[in-house]
Amino acid sequence: MGIQEFLSSGDERLDRRFLFTAEIDQMTSVLRRTLLLDKSRRENDAEHSWHIAVMAMLFSEYATELVDIGRVVQMCVVHDLVEIYAGDTFAYDAVGNADKEAREKKAADKLFAMLPEEQGRMIRSMWEEFDAMETADAKYAACMDRLQPFYHNTLTDGHTWVESGTNRAAVEKRMAVIKEFMPRVYVWVAANIDHAIEAGWLKP
Amino acid sequence: MGIQEFLSSGDERLDRRFLFTAEIDQMTSVLRRTLLLDKSRRENDAEHSWHIAVMAMLFSEYATELVDIGRVVQMCVVHDLVEIYAGDTFAYDAVGNADKEAREKKAADKLFAMLPEEQGRMIRSMWEEFDAMETADAKYAACMDRLQPFYHNTLTDGHTWVESGTNRAAVEKRMAVIKEFMPRVYVWVAANIDHAIEAGWLKP
Repeated sequence: MGIQEFLSSGDERLDRRFLFTAEIDQMTSVLRRTLLLDKSRRENDAEHSWHIAVMAMLFSEYATELVDIGRVVQMCVVHDLVEIYAGDTFAYDAVGNADKEAREKKAADKLFAMLPEEQGRMIRSMWEEFDAMETADAKYAACMDRLQPFYHNTLTDGHTWVESGTNRAAVEKRMAVIKEFMPRVYVWVAANIDHAIEAGWLKP
Repeated sequence: MGIQEFLSSGDERLDRRFLFTAEIDQMTSVLRRTLLLDKSRRENDAEHSWHIAVMAMLFSEYATELVDIGRVVQMCVVHDLVEIYAGDTFAYDAVGNADKEAREKKAADKLFAMLPEEQGRMIRSMWEEFDAMETADAKYAACMDRLQPFYHNTLTDGHTWVESGTNRAAVEKRMAVIKEFMPRVYVWVAANIDHAIEAGWLKP
């Protein structure tokens, strides 16, 4: 983005918001492994973040604890921002996941420092809460983050599972938060895992 | 999307959420006039909705009334869903805007009927609130919806203004809600309109 083209507002706090807004437009070029449902191309982080935010408005009756949808939707739209610098780490990539935390922490230091301090801290703490998966809101957001690519896989012939040779145990581990926090949804997840193995999309 | 591939959960209310989730993936192929900031391609509705949702978390200190960020972010992520069927109507297209309301109402009838009734009604009422631009939350969401493409234009040599031969009056009309609801941000908007005219991107 051409920072030289930006006309300063003369208000430093406002300028910081504008510069951050331009920076995060790069989410549109962080590609995930997941295919769009029309199989035309891989989904990007902006699309994924939007999709799970809408999902968070839909599935809360299946959560085992009360969640604050307004907070969760905010968590969803910011949960992957650090990937602008850290890149997307595929859920079933053991090597990539080994240094994911360090890469993302460094990215967060850089990215959130662009904002007025208290605002950067607020968004960062939301991302950290999401990542820690301890509060009800974070668990629910994490369920959406797992359910969406899982669902896409079930509708695209197991695309990312086939491509990466994933097995049942790895998927079950990834879906554990749904089993815990949304057991009625997990019944459907479990049936789809069985189906994916029968179809040869997932290794047993 | 291959509806035949969807494995029913046996819970009709849950199935409706899944089918709706798949349907709205089409937001990724509703193209807007606005370019991404790297100018590689036009932005789609999913990306735009995500982008303004994050912006809504950033700019509230400039609003003249208190807003509920959690509600506004929800409004942002659903505000363009009807375009899946109704298509994107370019802000400065007088012909397209003449029947926009009727096309979008029909689209809403079809889309929101996919959800359990009370949930479809809830999301629809959020979209209607956004469109009416009467509440503080809706005005603020509308400001983000206007500010984002305006900002993109300022960083992409006035792309959509040049392409459509837009003039100052049309842009000022479109930005009126920012002038009313975020006057300190409008100072920056006004300066950029002047700059765009000097640069030849906008007609006087």
